[in-house]
Amino acid sequence: MDFNFHMPVRVVSGEGCLRGAGGALREMGRRCLVLTGGHSAQESGALGDLLDTLRGAGVEATVFPGITANPLVSQCQAAAFAAEACRAQFLVGVGGGSVMDAAKATAWLAANNICDGDRLFRPDDMRHAPLPLALVGTTAGTGSEVSATAVLTDDRTGRKRSITHPHCFARVAFADPRYTDSMPRSTTVSTALDAFAHAAEGWFAPVCGDVITAFGEKALPMLCTGLRDLAAHENPPSKETRDRLFYGSLWAGMVLCATGTAFPHPLGYVLTEDFGVPHGLACAVFHPAFLRRAERFAPERARALFALCGGRDACFSLLDTFATVPSRVRMTAEQADGYAKRWTDVKNFARTPGGFTAQEGAALLRELFVR
Amino acid sequence: MDFNFHMPVRVVSGEGCLRGAGGALREMGRRCLVLTGGHSAQESGALGDLLDTLRGAGVEATVFPGITANPLVSQCQAAAFAAEACRAQFLVGVGGGSVMDAAKATAWLAANNICDGDRLFRPDDMRHAPLPLALVGTTAGTGSEVSATAVLTDDRTGRKRSITHPHCFARVAFADPRYTDSMPRSTTVSTALDAFAHAAEGWFAPVCGDVITAFGEKALPMLCTGLRDLAAHENPPSKETRDRLFYGSLWAGMVLCATGTAFPHPLGYVLTEDFGVPHGLACAVFHPAFLRRAERFAPERARALFALCGGRDACFSLLDTFATVPSRVRMTAEQADGYAKRWTDVKNFARTPGGFTAQEGAALLRELFVR
Repeated sequence: MDFNFHMPVRVVSGEGCLRGAGGALREMGRRCLVLTGGHSAQESGALGDLLDTLRGAGVEATVFPGITANPLVSQCQAAAFAAEACRAQFLVGVGGGSVMDAAKATAWLAANNICDGDRLFRPDDMRHAPLPLALVGTTAGTGSEVSATAVLTDDRTGRKRSITHPHCFARVAFADPRYTDSMPRSTTVSTALDAFAHAAEGWFAPVCGDVITAFGEKALPMLCTGLRDLAAHENPPSKETRDRLFYGSLWAGMVLCATGTAFPHPLGYVLTEDFGVPHGLACAVFHPAFLRRAERFAPERARALFALCGGRDACFSLLDTFATVPSRVRMTAEQADGYAKRWTDVKNFARTPGGFTAQEGAALLRELFVR
Repeated sequence: MDFNFHMPVRVVSGEGCLRGAGGALREMGRRCLVLTGGHSAQESGALGDLLDTLRGAGVEATVFPGITANPLVSQCQAAAFAAEACRAQFLVGVGGGSVMDAAKATAWLAANNICDGDRLFRPDDMRHAPLPLALVGTTAGTGSEVSATAVLTDDRTGRKRSITHPHCFARVAFADPRYTDSMPRSTTVSTALDAFAHAAEGWFAPVCGDVITAFGEKALPMLCTGLRDLAAHENPPSKETRDRLFYGSLWAGMVLCATGTAFPHPLGYVLTEDFGVPHGLACAVFHPAFLRRAERFAPERARALFALCGGRDACFSLLDTFATVPSRVRMTAEQADGYAKRWTDVKNFARTPGGFTAQEGAALLRELFVR
């Protein structure tokens, strides 16, 4: 038995939870910068609720709406200068994982006045702790609300890079499942697959102890039931389905936060960076292979996972339904082998049951995408 | 569904976990004050391990061994002056709930240079955040490791008073079940009953949402199985029993931290303050009445709780075995009624299923102790 655990974010949840949050936000400062991306912050109602609450609490807010999916370091630098210009004392990120991760990075950059974006990836070199941060999620997948990780895209290489540091935790996350109601079906599916990937990959991590296993035991049934609801072509998804996927994604985020992810994540980055496949789907594509590997090297844990997912067949059938390889993704054998070169010293491989090598990664890419 | 949650302590657990903790402790400062009480810190091996680790990490440690059960505010003041005298940059509490709670209070006092102990109970008036705090538990009951509450005894009145504030959370807790191996049977039983009281009272609190319910679902079976092992006169308890009670008490502490307790706690304080009954037993004495009340006003939650405890009969039978009223506890009807006067505006009563009044409290004292 063990009880290893650390997740310091205060999570305030439930419908309308932002409306009562004036006091908590005012405690963070008198001026804030609000980061958003695309239209989802507005369409979901989250941005409106937030700005109303901030106004009511006497907090000056400036909105920085320029964050895209797979956010660039330069976007965070621009946001950090905006934070400085409006003398923000804290930040709020309103959106999906991209916006929340960008807000985490911006909080570091704004507090440390950094021109060299590369220093962001050496958080221990930074002099000042990041600005305090509040997060409002509008998707049900990322788990960024409760994790200490931010994944960004390097402007020069176009590749994903991540920072993980206890200072990346938000001070508070407002978790209102109703903000996910306006998500289109494709985003709903892809983000749900992302949450499933976090719970399933974390489940097999060596550090997945008793506390984190308990979180996985909550996440997996909620997410699989939610995905099955979606598979039954429920459209738009019911409130119950939305709630399952949303709260399931937070449980999965608590797993992710403790364990990190396994080989599907770095392989998935390739599909996102070079083929534009949405992150959740890009990871899930590798899950049939991941789960078969887990069955071989961690058979007991695999049996327990399948039991939580409604059975082995039901689990693979869900992946068959949703985690299908986009037909536009094709590569040559040389390309596939080329990717192996970037996978040196990948921690996600070490967290995979039985371990995983760059060569095995390339072989899997060839199997799936060379046609 | 909901996901309300906040427990920022980093919990590092497992046998020998202190030995690898030099770096984490050194990060907190170069000089520390170590609070202990009685002999348990030494007998358990925890104090020796801690001092070795601190020495190895180059941290100067001064030991303040003067904390008793039901610690007085003045003991914390004395410890705070000791902390100042040795210019401690952080504190470590090694012991049971009394020592850990005293360490929380000392951390406030030492940072704020306070002569007036009464100000301790108005934490929002304090200018400085408390000194950073590490905790090492040597009992399996209190849950203080993961809670933001410290219960102290007022020197003037002899009554228990508590502080609850987010700043009362330790920075890190080292949870090694082997430190409970040297606990005598009476302490083992009383602290296990305390942990059970936290899980069971919290279970019925209005704020016990989905996350906290999940923690209760872990705590209750572990604690009831552990208590049943003890009932079978297992002596000394096996490693498995110790582990169940220890980790069960941490799960229960996570419930406590989110919910607070119900009427058995303030009623139990009377038995501790005026009759010297150990805290856990003092609370558990009221649990048969508490659970019968819960059955009446929250029947579904009660059914779920009994299912986790191995059934209704098994649950009451455990309380029959262990939570017996000490025969020395006798009072007159007038005394019992007199206690009602101190129970004004008691939050624990509001958290009781169906509510609870001071008059009902007095009636229960009469029923149990007027003979």
